[in-house]
Amino acid sequence: MKFNPLSQSHLEYLQSLVVPDRFSTGESHLDLHSKDQSRHLPCRPEAVIWPTDRTEVSAILKYANDNLIPVTGWGSGSSLEGNPIPVKQGLVIDFSLMNKILDIRAESFQVDVEPGVIYQDLNEKLKYTGLFFPPDPGARATIGGVIANNASGTRTVYYGSTKDYVLRLTVVLASGEIIETGTRAAKSSSGYDLIHIFVGSEGTLGLVVAATLRLVGLPEEFSAAVVTFPSVETASTAVYQVMRAGLAPAALELLGPECVELINREESLSLAVLPTLFMEFHGPTQNQLTDVLELAREICQEEGCGEFRSGIGRRERDRIFKARHELGEMIGRNHPGCDILIIDVATPITAYPEMIATAKEELISTGLTGYTFSHAGDGNIHLNLIGKKGDKKDWDMIEKISHRMVTKTLDMGGTCTGEHGVGIGKRKFMHAEHGSSLEWMKRIKSLFDPNGILNPGKIFP
Amino acid sequence: MKFNPLSQSHLEYLQSLVVPDRFSTGESHLDLHSKDQSRHLPCRPEAVIWPTDRTEVSAILKYANDNLIPVTGWGSGSSLEGNPIPVKQGLVIDFSLMNKILDIRAESFQVDVEPGVIYQDLNEKLKYTGLFFPPDPGARATIGGVIANNASGTRTVYYGSTKDYVLRLTVVLASGEIIETGTRAAKSSSGYDLIHIFVGSEGTLGLVVAATLRLVGLPEEFSAAVVTFPSVETASTAVYQVMRAGLAPAALELLGPECVELINREESLSLAVLPTLFMEFHGPTQNQLTDVLELAREICQEEGCGEFRSGIGRRERDRIFKARHELGEMIGRNHPGCDILIIDVATPITAYPEMIATAKEELISTGLTGYTFSHAGDGNIHLNLIGKKGDKKDWDMIEKISHRMVTKTLDMGGTCTGEHGVGIGKRKFMHAEHGSSLEWMKRIKSLFDPNGILNPGKIFP
Repeated sequence: MKFNPLSQSHLEYLQSLVVPDRFSTGESHLDLHSKDQSRHLPCRPEAVIWPTDRTEVSAILKYANDNLIPVTGWGSGSSLEGNPIPVKQGLVIDFSLMNKILDIRAESFQVDVEPGVIYQDLNEKLKYTGLFFPPDPGARATIGGVIANNASGTRTVYYGSTKDYVLRLTVVLASGEIIETGTRAAKSSSGYDLIHIFVGSEGTLGLVVAATLRLVGLPEEFSAAVVTFPSVETASTAVYQVMRAGLAPAALELLGPECVELINREESLSLAVLPTLFMEFHGPTQNQLTDVLELAREICQEEGCGEFRSGIGRRERDRIFKARHELGEMIGRNHPGCDILIIDVATPITAYPEMIATAKEELISTGLTGYTFSHAGDGNIHLNLIGKKGDKKDWDMIEKISHRMVTKTLDMGGTCTGEHGVGIGKRKFMHAEHGSSLEWMKRIKSLFDPNGILNPGKIFP
Repeated sequence: MKFNPLSQSHLEYLQSLVVPDRFSTGESHLDLHSKDQSRHLPCRPEAVIWPTDRTEVSAILKYANDNLIPVTGWGSGSSLEGNPIPVKQGLVIDFSLMNKILDIRAESFQVDVEPGVIYQDLNEKLKYTGLFFPPDPGARATIGGVIANNASGTRTVYYGSTKDYVLRLTVVLASGEIIETGTRAAKSSSGYDLIHIFVGSEGTLGLVVAATLRLVGLPEEFSAAVVTFPSVETASTAVYQVMRAGLAPAALELLGPECVELINREESLSLAVLPTLFMEFHGPTQNQLTDVLELAREICQEEGCGEFRSGIGRRERDRIFKARHELGEMIGRNHPGCDILIIDVATPITAYPEMIATAKEELISTGLTGYTFSHAGDGNIHLNLIGKKGDKKDWDMIEKISHRMVTKTLDMGGTCTGEHGVGIGKRKFMHAEHGSSLEWMKRIKSLFDPNGILNPGKIFP
C-alpha cells in the first residue's frame, strides 16, 4: 500500500473538520501518540485529531480514505504489543473526548457507551446498579481499546472475554460509512455475525464509535485464598486439578516467586516469597463458597502446597489484585536500561503445567532474567523477559525463547496471543497459527478497507 | 445468479466421487430432502450425496462451484424456517454418514465432532465424563445444523447459544478449499474471528466438516418449579422480575394455557390449565437452590401467582421438558389440514411483558387460533399461528400479525429470529433489522461464495 504524507492542504482540511484545539501537530502530542506500553519502537503520527461524535469520525475517515492517509485509532495507549503505534505515520484519531456513558439500562443488564470511556470508570459508575462489565484487562484501557483487542484478564476464567459482552456496535468504516450491527435481544440467529469480525480486529477494519455491552450482577459473596507451593510446576498442576474439578474460580492467578518478591517490595506486602496461586470464588452464599474453598484446599494439599491461606478480606484481596494489575509496570521500573518482551501464549489447560515447566527451563538454561505469571485458569501464560537495551546477545536469546515458546504452544493447540493482541510483535506467528485461514483474514481486511488505511502494519505479517 | 441443472455428465461425475450407494437421484431420497419441519413449500433437489470425509466434501464443492451447481448442506431436516430446503434444486450434501465423535478430551472440557453427530447422542455419549454441550434446540438436530443456525433453546438463558461453545472449525469453502480456524485455548486475541462468521450462516458461506466444542460440567444439583398465573401478562411480568433479581435460572419457560392443555392431553400429564412458568435452577448445593427457589416464590407471589409447586423430581422434570420440546410437533398433529407460522422474535427482557400482551391481543382481535410459548428468560417469544391450508383470508391475517409482531420487536431493539434462523421466512425482515449492515453481509457472502452456489435463496431478501 502506498500512502500520502500529510500535506499542508490535508492538514488544513482536517483542521477544518473540528474546532482548533481538537487538532494538533504539536511535538508533545505527536510524542504522546507514538508509543504504547510495549518495547516496540515509537513512531510519531503526523497529526492527532480528537473527534467528539461519529459524524466527525466519519468525515475524517472519508477524507483520509480518499487521500490515502493512514489512520490509527487511539484509546489510552495502554496496549502491550504496539497495537496503536502509527508505524506508517499519518493521522491518529484519539477517542478520549468521546467518553460518554450514553445510557445505563440496568433493568435489561445493558449499557451504551462511547469508545473513550475508561474501563474502570465505567464499573465505578455502574456500582450503584449492582452490575458490572467483567473483562478485566488491568490497565486503564478505554472500552474502544478493550473491544479492539478482545481484552481479557483476571476475571476471564469465569466471566469470559470482551467478545462475550458486546451486543451491538456502531462502527465507522474506512470509507466513512457508519454501520450499526447486532441486537439488544439476549440472543439472535439473524444473519451473519458482524460484531465478532470487529471485536479483536485492532482497529484495522473500522473504528467503533458506540457499543452496547452486556452486564452481569456483582457477586453476592466472594472468598479468596493465597496458596504457596514448593515449585511453579506443582502450582501449575494444582491449577489444572482445580479447573478439572469444575470449581469454577472467578480468578486463578499464578505468580512466580520473583513476582511475589517484587510485589512485596513495591506494595509493602509481606507475602511468602514462593510460587503462589491467588484464587477467588464468587457465589450466592458464604456456605457454598466455604464448601468450594475446602475442595480447593484438598486439591492444593494433594499437590503438596505449603500454606493455604483462606479468609482473605476484601481489603487484602483488593491490594493483591491491584499489585497483580501493576506487575507489568513494576517489572519495567525495576529494570532501568532494559527492554522487556512479554510472552502471552495460551494453551488448553491440559498443556498448562508443561508450558510452565518449559518457561522455567528456558530461564535456567539461558540464564536470563524473567518473570513468570499467568492467568492460570485460562492457560494464559506470561513470561516477561528482560534484556539490556540494544544488547544483541540478550535480544537474540530472548527472541529465540519467544519463538520456541510460541511454537510449542501452537503444537499443543494453543494461540500465540491470549489477550494482548497481534499488534506488531505477533505478526510473525500468524501464518503458523492460522495457516490458510490467514488469507481469508486478509481478504476480509481488503473488503472492509480496500486502501489499507486503517492501522496499517498490524496483524498481518 | 444463474445455475446449471444437473446434466447426465454432472451426475456421472458426482457419482464417481463416492461409492454407488452414497449418491442418489431416487424419488424417495429427493422427497426426503425437499422439506424441513416448517410450513415452507417443499422443493426437491436433483440429487443427494452422502460424503464420508472432508476430502469428498471438498471434491464435491469444487466440482459444483466450477459447474455452477447449487449445493445445500443437510443435517437432519429439523429446522423451522425452510433453512435447508433446496429452493434452487441442485445437489444436497447429506452429512448423516459423517457422524463420528472424533475425540473427547474431558480433561480440557472439549470434544471434536463431525457435523452429522446428533445433538442428543453427543450428550448421551458425554454423560460418563460428567460434561455436556448445553445448547438445547429440542429437535434431533445434528451438530452441523446446530452450528449453521446458532441454535439455542431452554438452557440458553443460563448457558448461552451455540456461538458461545465453538472453539475451532474445519470448513470446506465453495471453491473446495478446506480451512481450519479457531484455537483449542480457552481464549485468544489472535487475528480476526472467522469462527463467528460461519456460526449462524446457515450453510451459505461454507460447510462445516469438523468442530471442536467447549463443554461444561453437568450441574451438581438442580431444582425445578411449576408456577401458574391468572394471565400470561402476570406470568411475563414475573419472568422479568426473576431475571432482574439476578436469580440466573437454567431454564425459564412460559406456556400459554392452550399449550398446557395440549401437553396434558398428549403426554397424560395433569398440569393445571393456566398460564404457566417452568423454572429450573442449577447449583452446587441443594441448600443454595432452596434459597434461590424461595426468592423466586416471593417474586411470583408478588405478581399474583396461583400455585408455586417446587420440589419437582427429576422424572417429572424430564417429562415436562420432553413435552415442551415436542410442543411444536404436537401443535402440528392437532391441526390436520392446517399450516403453521411460527413467530420467533426476541426482545430485551424489559420489553418481554409488552410483547406477550401484544401476542394475546393479536389473537383476541383476529379470532385466530394460536399457541403462545416462550424461552421467556431470553425474551424469546414463540407464537404459533394456525391457518387452514390455502385459505387466503387466514393467511393474509397471519402474515399481517407476523409483520406487526416483528416490526414491534425491532422497534424495541429486538431481533426477527431468536433461534430458528432466517431461512426463507425471515428474509423479508432482514433489511428492517440490519439496515446498511445487510449490504456488508452480502459482500461477505460474495467474498466466500462468489458464484452463490451455497444454499442459494436463503437469508438475503
